[in-house]
Amino acid sequence: MQYLNFDKTAVYKKLLEYSKKQVFSFKDKLNAKRVKECVIPMAAGLNYSWAAKAVDDDCIKLLGELAVEQELIAKYNALINGEVINTGENRKVLHHLLRGQQGKPVMEDGKNIGDFYLKELERFCAFASDVNQGKYKGSTGKDFSTVIQIGIGGSDLGPRALYLALENWAEANGKKKLNAKFISNVDPDDASAVIASSDLEKSLFILVSKSGTTQETLANELFVKDKLVKAGLDPSKHMAAVTSETSPLARNSAYLDSFYIDDYIGGRYSSSSAVGGCVLSLAFGPDVFKDFLKGAAEADKLALNEDIFKNAALFDALIGVWESNFLNYPYTAVLPYSQALSRFPAHLQQMDMESNGKRVNRRGEAIDYTTGPVIFGEPGTNGQHSFFQLLHQGTSIVPLQFIGFTESQKSDDVSVDNSVSQTKLNANLAAQIVAFAKGQDSSDKNKEFPGGRPSSLIYGKQLTPAALGSLLAHYENKVMFQGFIWNVNSFDQEGVQLGKILTKKVLSGDFGDDALETYSKLLGV
Amino acid sequence: MQYLNFDKTAVYKKLLEYSKKQVFSFKDKLNAKRVKECVIPMAAGLNYSWAAKAVDDDCIKLLGELAVEQELIAKYNALINGEVINTGENRKVLHHLLRGQQGKPVMEDGKNIGDFYLKELERFCAFASDVNQGKYKGSTGKDFSTVIQIGIGGSDLGPRALYLALENWAEANGKKKLNAKFISNVDPDDASAVIASSDLEKSLFILVSKSGTTQETLANELFVKDKLVKAGLDPSKHMAAVTSETSPLARNSAYLDSFYIDDYIGGRYSSSSAVGGCVLSLAFGPDVFKDFLKGAAEADKLALNEDIFKNAALFDALIGVWESNFLNYPYTAVLPYSQALSRFPAHLQQMDMESNGKRVNRRGEAIDYTTGPVIFGEPGTNGQHSFFQLLHQGTSIVPLQFIGFTESQKSDDVSVDNSVSQTKLNANLAAQIVAFAKGQDSSDKNKEFPGGRPSSLIYGKQLTPAALGSLLAHYENKVMFQGFIWNVNSFDQEGVQLGKILTKKVLSGDFGDDALETYSKLLGV
Repeated sequence: MQYLNFDKTAVYKKLLEYSKKQVFSFKDKLNAKRVKECVIPMAAGLNYSWAAKAVDDDCIKLLGELAVEQELIAKYNALINGEVINTGENRKVLHHLLRGQQGKPVMEDGKNIGDFYLKELERFCAFASDVNQGKYKGSTGKDFSTVIQIGIGGSDLGPRALYLALENWAEANGKKKLNAKFISNVDPDDASAVIASSDLEKSLFILVSKSGTTQETLANELFVKDKLVKAGLDPSKHMAAVTSETSPLARNSAYLDSFYIDDYIGGRYSSSSAVGGCVLSLAFGPDVFKDFLKGAAEADKLALNEDIFKNAALFDALIGVWESNFLNYPYTAVLPYSQALSRFPAHLQQMDMESNGKRVNRRGEAIDYTTGPVIFGEPGTNGQHSFFQLLHQGTSIVPLQFIGFTESQKSDDVSVDNSVSQTKLNANLAAQIVAFAKGQDSSDKNKEFPGGRPSSLIYGKQLTPAALGSLLAHYENKVMFQGFIWNVNSFDQEGVQLGKILTKKVLSGDFGDDALETYSKLLGV
Repeated sequence: MQYLNFDKTAVYKKLLEYSKKQVFSFKDKLNAKRVKECVIPMAAGLNYSWAAKAVDDDCIKLLGELAVEQELIAKYNALINGEVINTGENRKVLHHLLRGQQGKPVMEDGKNIGDFYLKELERFCAFASDVNQGKYKGSTGKDFSTVIQIGIGGSDLGPRALYLALENWAEANGKKKLNAKFISNVDPDDASAVIASSDLEKSLFILVSKSGTTQETLANELFVKDKLVKAGLDPSKHMAAVTSETSPLARNSAYLDSFYIDDYIGGRYSSSSAVGGCVLSLAFGPDVFKDFLKGAAEADKLALNEDIFKNAALFDALIGVWESNFLNYPYTAVLPYSQALSRFPAHLQQMDMESNGKRVNRRGEAIDYTTGPVIFGEPGTNGQHSFFQLLHQGTSIVPLQFIGFTESQKSDDVSVDNSVSQTKLNANLAAQIVAFAKGQDSSDKNKEFPGGRPSSLIYGKQLTPAALGSLLAHYENKVMFQGFIWNVNSFDQEGVQLGKILTKKVLSGDFGDDALETYSKLLGV
């Protein structure tokens, strides 16, 4: 297996030449036949539609060659089989193993890592069941009604997005056990507001930090403990930890229990571990979380398919690279037509931008082609009344990723003007795809829509736990494949280090830079 | 006064030549002196720092010429004096008048429009006072404890962002009167979840739609009324409206009262009107909203200054154009180091992208230069653990707009490792600015930070109502100036129309396009 820079592949030049010669005008070709044909089944009943993408057979043929030449499936196999894919940190990358054994058993020091992950899964699921059954109580003997996760970055964005994604579904299906809240920012107003709105006697805190040294999270832990003590409560009866076995939080009597992940689970890929699983199992019960894992595992399996027409994550990745490196679109908007996915774009923003926002290849050599795009998004229909103006009529083209479901989660709806709101929601979604693709001529240039705005659509029946797992894994695998194409290490994040170093300098008072000192003074530090 | 396309100005060519010859390397020049000098005072005690921007004296001189040649202040004066600036819709643009009389009285049909705005301000303030004093009660005789705004786009994003921005401040200062919630999406799960979590007997709904015909808002109104009726409540005792005088919602006995705006207040600029004012006055009392307006009015006045070194909105606008059109950065990240501003970037996203995401000039003629950028952002320090990787080490440069405050809103803090969280927050902010600007060399290219990432910083003592008004007006005026530079109409949004037309076709079953019909079927419509 070979790790080649993207621009050193034979197919790169072919794609470049092809892109200069012609770009498929889907604007004129988007018809019922194309919409019906350009669909790839995904896990848990979802589907990936790429009819409104600027790719024809010739382009797809080249993208297929790219998948072969960059050995994308072989690299994915190497990853799940435990090779050191995270070169910068000399680590395996094993988040897939959290939800199923797709490859060979991954052994280390005679230990089967999959067994370790499974053991932790069962441990935090049992803990959640015990809490839900009232076996744990707060220090004044009351049942817990709220779980509050303290974490930042991957310990916050993914779990929060997934919680919000399933909250209504759980309520509608009698699965809601606890309310969940989240404290992330080191801004004290964040923790203070969450605490002020909570009944501490009934609150269970989950402290999440892999290293056990995250500045924001430790500050918030002490913030919370201070409040618990002042309320006459015993913090050790109100707090569990999710961390690595080597961290100061592990096997620590300050916590009810500690659940473990290891260095092979990156923060932004940790939603399938105790980082996401503990809070989700507490909120909705372990079965819901396990259904989520099943959907993700099914997606992981589909992503092993060499046939790009049967591998939605791979296809999506290839199109993204086509749009980024050859059509020169530097951003992508994620637009779920589902209020439940209101924070899903924020999670994808981290997952994608932190993974592939890189300027060196996996060997640490500078590269001179564009890597990961800027990701942003808000739910539809809200976005339509906001930034869609630029998407339709701006001077730049932004590729779009729509997500939609036939059914709402709560089935609580009202009919107005002969249609229920869910129907209106999806009518808007269909209308937007076609409006972006086909545009509209007009003698009044201000009312003219150029069209040719490419979009994909992931659609399914309902946003269930399994569908959510499928959706999450789709994006994780897409980002992984793109990292392989660009030959970057998608699993480290050296770009966060410099800020940490300079922050320490500021806090120590030993600035070492007069601009840093002056900015600090302006800000009252 | 002349409305010239940007690329037809004399200074455009000069800037283009200058940008090809040299771009100021602030990376090497950012020192204490520059940080101290490059500050422009803003309204309500805020300041705009541009030290970490790629502009030197020569560049600023040209940008100053641009301000003169495009007659930016004269055009702003024309706007506040009531000229028809919104050419596409043949309308005046009068949101400044909502918060103060900066120009001449604006008369129409013998009526002073400022008097009308003032009258409505006093009417909804009196209504809010009456509600807060218990003069209005729900239909079962209970006091209102929650206000729920039903609106979308500008009737949602701005008011919601401002509510969240002041909620903690109000609680800390004894000003919190009612909780506020928002229903926006036509996704029925949105309204259903808000209703399920509310005590309807104590809930007052504010229905906000300028036209009175917004599809999503009317569907949600009926959703809510259905729930009220089923709960045995009289909807007319639980709902007020904000609309235009000519809408079906005006003077309608279905509402406790109706408050009016007119066609000269665009949705995304309506936070200073009853659209934002009614819900904010109900939540925090009228005085808080009036303080907010004062801060905004002060900012509007400063924006009249011809001296670019005394006009932060103008300076910010000019730098944004420099970065967009000459440095070719197609996006901007808004990064408030304040959890209270968690949804402020989403509001700016609408304000900016809907205003200047245009491809025709104000006369409806096609233009061939880049206009408004993509705007996105999340609060720091959260973003540091998410997408900052790409901002530091990605292959593209994203200009950054930081916002920070010396003091938290609640003064509820904890000291860990010799510093309180608020200090840590701002230490991180100062560190990030310098890390982005100066970068870091390293023999390990993966640990190298190129630096040269430009940022501005708006800073102040605390996020108070007046500071929030100053901040909002700053961005409104910045976007306005940029629209004048690009010679676009920043105040219409024709780009939202095509989607509405196609949605109607879908809902009528008369698709007129087989792709539209097929997408609709996939989505169960």
